Amino acid sequence: MNKPDFSQLNCLYINCTLKKSPAKSHTATLIQVSKNIMMNEKVTVDEIRLVDHEIASGVYPDMTEHGWREDEWPSIFKKVEKADILVIGTPIWLGEKSSMAQKLIERLYAMSGQRNEKGQYVYYGKVAGTMITGNEDGLKHAAMGILYAMQHIGYSIPPQADCGWIGKIGPGPSYGDVEWQGKQLKNPAGFDSDFTNKNITFMTYNLLHLATILKQQKGYSNYGNSIKDWQSGEQWNFENPEYR
Amino acid sequence: MNKPDFSQLNCLYINCTLKKSPAKSHTATLIQVSKNIMMNEKVTVDEIRLVDHEIASGVYPDMTEHGWREDEWPSIFKKVEKADILVIGTPIWLGEKSSMAQKLIERLYAMSGQRNEKGQYVYYGKVAGTMITGNEDGLKHAAMGILYAMQHIGYSIPPQADCGWIGKIGPGPSYGDVEWQGKQLKNPAGFDSDFTNKNITFMTYNLLHLATILKQQKGYSNYGNSIKDWQSGEQWNFENPEYR
Amino acid sequence: MNKPDFSQLNCLYINCTLKKSPAKSHTATLIQVSKNIMMNEKVTVDEIRLVDHEIASGVYPDMTEHGWREDEWPSIFKKVEKADILVIGTPIWLGEKSSMAQKLIERLYAMSGQRNEKGQYVYYGKVAGTMITGNEDGLKHAAMGILYAMQHIGYSIPPQADCGWIGKIGPGPSYGDVEWQGKQLKNPAGFDSDFTNKNITFMTYNLLHLATILKQQKGYSNYGNSIKDWQSGEQWNFENPEYR
Amino acid sequence: MNKPDFSQLNCLYINCTLKKSPAKSHTATLIQVSKNIMMNEKVTVDEIRLVDHEIASGVYPDMTEHGWREDEWPSIFKKVEKADILVIGTPIWLGEKSSMAQKLIERLYAMSGQRNEKGQYVYYGKVAGTMITGNEDGLKHAAMGILYAMQHIGYSIPPQADCGWIGKIGPGPSYGDVEWQGKQLKNPAGFDSDFTNKNITFMTYNLLHLATILKQQKGYSNYGNSIKDWQSGEQWNFENPEYR
Repeated sequence: MNKPDFSQLNCLYINCTLKKSPAKSHTATLIQVSKNIMMNEKVTVDEIRLVDHEIASGVYPDMTEHGWREDEWPSIFKKVEKADILVIGTPIWLGEKSSMAQKLIERLYAMSGQRNEKGQYVYYGKVAGTMITGNEDGLKHAAMGILYAMQHIGYSIPPQADCGWIGKIGPGPSYGDVEWQGKQLKNPAGFDSDFTNKNITFMTYNLLHLATILKQQKGYSNYGNSIKDWQSGEQWNFENPEYR
Repeated sequence: MNKPDFSQLNCLYINCTLKKSPAKSHTATLIQVSKNIMMNEKVTVDEIRLVDHEIASGVYPDMTEHGWREDEWPSIFKKVEKADILVIGTPIWLGEKSSMAQKLIERLYAMSGQRNEKGQYVYYGKVAGTMITGNEDGLKHAAMGILYAMQHIGYSIPPQADCGWIGKIGPGPSYGDVEWQGKQLKNPAGFDSDFTNKNITFMTYNLLHLATILKQQKGYSNYGNSIKDWQSGEQWNFENPEYR
Repeated sequence: MNKPDFSQLNCLYINCTLKKSPAKSHTATLIQVSKNIMMNEKVTVDEIRLVDHEIASGVYPDMTEHGWREDEWPSIFKKVEKADILVIGTPIWLGEKSSMAQKLIERLYAMSGQRNEKGQYVYYGKVAGTMITGNEDGLKHAAMGILYAMQHIGYSIPPQADCGWIGKIGPGPSYGDVEWQGKQLKNPAGFDSDFTNKNITFMTYNLLHLATILKQQKGYSNYGNSIKDWQSGEQWNFENPEYR
Repeated sequence: MNKPDFSQLNCLYINCTLKKSPAKSHTATLIQVSKNIMMNEKVTVDEIRLVDHEIASGVYPDMTEHGWREDEWPSIFKKVEKADILVIGTPIWLGEKSSMAQKLIERLYAMSGQRNEKGQYVYYGKVAGTMITGNEDGLKHAAMGILYAMQHIGYSIPPQADCGWIGKIGPGPSYGDVEWQGKQLKNPAGFDSDFTNKNITFMTYNLLHLATILKQQKGYSNYGNSIKDWQSGEQWNFENPEYR
């Protein structure tokens, strides 16, 4: 098998940690592992720590038009638009994705009035995945909400698009921690998890494969999924359900 | 744009209603709308009502080897294997997918020890979606769990792969009901929902598009996602995280 | 502080494992820890492994009236009715409670047409909790669905009513396992978790405290919550919302 | 039956809308219906719209000690501490509670290091409920997460502690809207829903009943649930699980 060429792809990581820079983010440590693969594969990568920016709450494209003094979302959305791949990173709090991750989803959703040149939602043709850290529980639950939202607004989800690390139940170190309760750990927490390493790798490559395929196809055909066409009365082979 | 040819595809609908045949299933009524599109597009379709079969509980491929007298799962799994597209239909109970849908997921998951000829999980290259009915609430929540499980075991999820119908809060008719509390409805419930009709259509076509693309590609390249290769020590461009 | 007397209380544990007896259930091992406290406190306890019984799928009180040959639910419901406390135990599969747990919720919900002698839902005055085992992730998510359903149908939920054990991410031993991948473990998995032991203890005592209090009060006053009264037109101090 | 006296109780509503005042909040309109009952019953009520305050992100009691310029949480927490009852109101976005609701949960959780005078978590003895608005779907899912978090940090949940209003699937008016797509509605959306009115009433009274009972009992006995005692080695009738 030939090694694929991923060098035309662009991947954006958005870290939804609650900690402002320069505080250490365990989620950033996890993201770095995937980013390294991407960079080794010559993918163009970018990373944003959302909490470092003034992102307004709300569900409009630009909240400065709705009473907020500041809103950096429009400039961040430009990066989202440019990226073939979006990876949302989040910590877990009480078994849920962070409030920053929920805010990101609200703002992505706020753009769903936009269309691409085929009359489809603007995220069609892009792919998404998620990377999650916590100290004990909630990875799959956080992933459910994030991946659901992504596909619902138009992203495609490749196989095994969620990964991360959590420790066993109860308080404990988070990903990459080198000490816990004053004691040095033999290895940074999670770094030696074959399960986590495999899942990061598979997610990263599956994002690259599906993004490559969809880019080659110039996204999805708009036969059967153009909002613009549907609103003009086109229904393709849909038939109104009839009472039988 | 040329009309695509979907006639090589095979789609399986599994209805996870709690009602045995011949009782009327609202979920079956909903599924029929998508099936009609598929049939008009010359796709080979099949539909199973899971509750009509003796499906054991458990997480092994064949539960007759684990103390159950009967288990039709192995024969149903053959249909899953053959299908390019799997659509899981479910009713909602107390805001959740049905216990039959959860059982289906458990049994699909039970096959995750299997590999395809590339050393990948057996569901790689297949696509999945979900169709949901209820009388008031829970469509997105049920979809979150179902689509999460599908991508996690190896399915790909195209854009907007969830659809269905629910009425407003409180008791009320379910999809396709022609009367409610003794009164005839003007239209069968949900049949005139432009939102539901559009979403069924978009889901159906997006499943077809992504299944076509993946079939043309013969599934995913196994560069970066083969369990077999990972277990043999191959890591592609993954690098062990290092403490910095 | 005087030691409370819990000897008048009755607690039912329903284990929603997928494994039929006599197979070892990790969830049963966990339940035993709470049961021991209850028994030491002279509470009357009972335990059911749901999968050992023929429980039909469906949302009617007795499914033999709806086409099922067999349905042991009516006899199990008698035990639910008698118990002041219901604890639902479940394993986790793909981050979700088991299909048996979902089936249990469907059947409990199916009784919601019943009223107690005050015109309230039949579960008013009873308390509920949940105990969960898995090998890596999903305890809180499973608890969310179970506790939500319980309060929604009329149970009261005391503080910290969820507990359990999960290991770190990836394949691993489940609660009480004494070996893993052919190697003997120093301690049965989870037995030495102070976090799990504390949470089992707190849940158990909080269930006992709230059940005691509610039993002394003979359940809830029906001022403001009687279905029967509401349907007769009583609204207490509710006022119809008005447009202002 | 005598009419109970609720006049000693204190209830705090926190509205987690994304809209800053003076924008109209549908969730506020819903909250008002419960508030009216409370006021008619002489309960002391207070209401906060969280988005009108500068609430930092993070999981520490006061984020100004962790790099944030401003953080009004400490003063809001004083109101939480004073209230016997906390009701969290939230809109739904993409089937989830709002990012403000998630932020509220993160900050409530951040106080979980605090103890009351009995050595219990600080929320013991308080009760919680939730009120939810959306235009189509997600009430139960949002309630699951909110009520789970509340009981997990120490609140008690009475029967049927979730209520709200959602319309049928697809775009539509939200609670209290008087027009939709330029057309006047016959009634403000949801005001005539007997289901919603009943559920608001039952939730409100059940919160009052359980808060009354727990106040009379001066909260929970700390036999079996004191963090302080557990950490000192007290285990009551808990016994370490033993391998059998």
